[in-house]
Amino acid sequence: MRVDTGSQNPLDRLAAALAGDLGLVNAMIRERMASEHAPRIPQVTAHLIEAGGKRLRPMLTLAAARLCGYRGPYHVHLAATVEFIHTATLLHDDVVDESARRRGRPTANLLWDNKSSVLVGDYLFSRSFQLMVETGSLRVMDILANASATIAEGEVLQLTAAQDLATTEAVYLQVVRGKTAALFSAATEVGGVIAGAPEDQVAALFAYGDALGVAFQVVDDLLDYSGSDAVIGKNVGDDFRERKLTLPVIKAVAQADAAERAFWVRVIERGNQQTGDLDRAKAIMARHGAMAAARADALAYVAAAEAALSDLPDDPLRGMLHDLAGFVVERIS
Amino acid sequence: MRVDTGSQNPLDRLAAALAGDLGLVNAMIRERMASEHAPRIPQVTAHLIEAGGKRLRPMLTLAAARLCGYRGPYHVHLAATVEFIHTATLLHDDVVDESARRRGRPTANLLWDNKSSVLVGDYLFSRSFQLMVETGSLRVMDILANASATIAEGEVLQLTAAQDLATTEAVYLQVVRGKTAALFSAATEVGGVIAGAPEDQVAALFAYGDALGVAFQVVDDLLDYSGSDAVIGKNVGDDFRERKLTLPVIKAVAQADAAERAFWVRVIERGNQQTGDLDRAKAIMARHGAMAAARADALAYVAAAEAALSDLPDDPLRGMLHDLAGFVVERIS
Repeated sequence: MRVDTGSQNPLDRLAAALAGDLGLVNAMIRERMASEHAPRIPQVTAHLIEAGGKRLRPMLTLAAARLCGYRGPYHVHLAATVEFIHTATLLHDDVVDESARRRGRPTANLLWDNKSSVLVGDYLFSRSFQLMVETGSLRVMDILANASATIAEGEVLQLTAAQDLATTEAVYLQVVRGKTAALFSAATEVGGVIAGAPEDQVAALFAYGDALGVAFQVVDDLLDYSGSDAVIGKNVGDDFRERKLTLPVIKAVAQADAAERAFWVRVIERGNQQTGDLDRAKAIMARHGAMAAARADALAYVAAAEAALSDLPDDPLRGMLHDLAGFVVERIS
Repeated sequence: MRVDTGSQNPLDRLAAALAGDLGLVNAMIRERMASEHAPRIPQVTAHLIEAGGKRLRPMLTLAAARLCGYRGPYHVHLAATVEFIHTATLLHDDVVDESARRRGRPTANLLWDNKSSVLVGDYLFSRSFQLMVETGSLRVMDILANASATIAEGEVLQLTAAQDLATTEAVYLQVVRGKTAALFSAATEVGGVIAGAPEDQVAALFAYGDALGVAFQVVDDLLDYSGSDAVIGKNVGDDFRERKLTLPVIKAVAQADAAERAFWVRVIERGNQQTGDLDRAKAIMARHGAMAAARADALAYVAAAEAALSDLPDDPLRGMLHDLAGFVVERIS
């Protein structure tokens, strides 16, 4: 494991430190996404998996396992499992959201069709379960099966909460814990479990992944209003057009005067959006400091993630995980 | 376990013999399809799960386990697992096929939306994995994870084979083994495995489920041309309209003269269908004896299923499984 000199960003440094393991994960992903009988499967999967995904989640698993001193082979299976679950949810999300762009490229549902995205997503889910079964660890399977259920539950909750101005920050957090943080925390937790780490370390890894995941999603939701298409790899304003109640909107709605409330009812609840509405939404959010407040929340989750790391062994990887948490919010600095 | 006098059909007799276990399965299904946070989930699931499904697949698991002398609790978990996997695939199939009716009722994608069907299907998949993890049997998890992957692979293969007149009977069988027989054979096999049955009995249970599943799907495909809406609970001719290459069509295409071939190219490959085309397709199939030939194939699979049972313990349940195989083709008598 080589330690970097510091010129790269924390994600790149983590990738460099884990380069050997990451190579094995990529080889396993390529091998397991193949299908002898249905060539459509690797086509769709390769489009997404090889489109410059950062492998953030699998790196969390690898780093957690290594940090806890793991020397066996199964952290590679678990990292691939986590990436397959993530890819499957992306395929299904893009069908659900009718998205046209992901990671700066057209989505699979646009290039092929919704059918392929649904079924190839199912295939990857099944493949992920095959991989975790190979580890032989019932506890790992339990954690990942629970995470999968929580992810789906969060997505359904998001679906029913969308367009509902009564959505609270508590409901938003439940959605975020489901759709994003559940896989982050499972990724770090299974790394500790497969390494046979003591329970306090496993709990710390869970807490780190959970807080990192929430921070990551809050930042993602902020970027949907403040980023540029090129930076976020999808279209700015997608959440607004999909009428999603994300954190800055919820904060702005909570402080809306009558005219603003009428605006939110029209664009979010009724979905009657006109040219200029996205800019007006941004102006209203700025007036109430909603973006800054959401950013402060993200920073608090970053601090919680960093604090959780104190229970883990002192190791260069721990430092990289620490810096990674800060890096997540740098995107909105 | 009470043995029936013979007045009912084999499915009802099996349900009567397994009534106690089946009650536990239904209670577990109801408990596990709940979601504290997302009430949309049990709504969608209940619509499908309580719409008069015959619980055929869970009964196969229960019967296999009981036949092999199982006295523990986990056949109930596995039967619920199998039903959840089945229900998840139905939800996703109806999105893929854009179906409007299932089991004589409007489909979930029509009553709610495609999004709910995709996500609730994902939730049930995850729930099924949670259930199988609870059994603690790695072998059972391996079998069911493999079956799930084979199902998805079969569905993707069907998608790419659809509308392709070059589809052979071998490809058709691969699709059917995936989308239908894989879950039948996994259902019977895990029943034997959880009971700790000897390997020859486990193999016999797999063979029975596999042959039964193929026969079941061939009959289903025949009914799509020869049944009535009321009997099959969906619209007759759906496969034709979806341009699926099912067994009777493949057999008729193989014997088509020039005019018939032009017809198949127009209606299946080009999808240019007009009033009367379904009747013309049926007439062409009748002329070549394609329906009768497909029915003969189904009967051969039924015979194979019956033969596989000879390796299993002599028990009233074995007799019911034997009769069930014959009953599957009675629907097209």
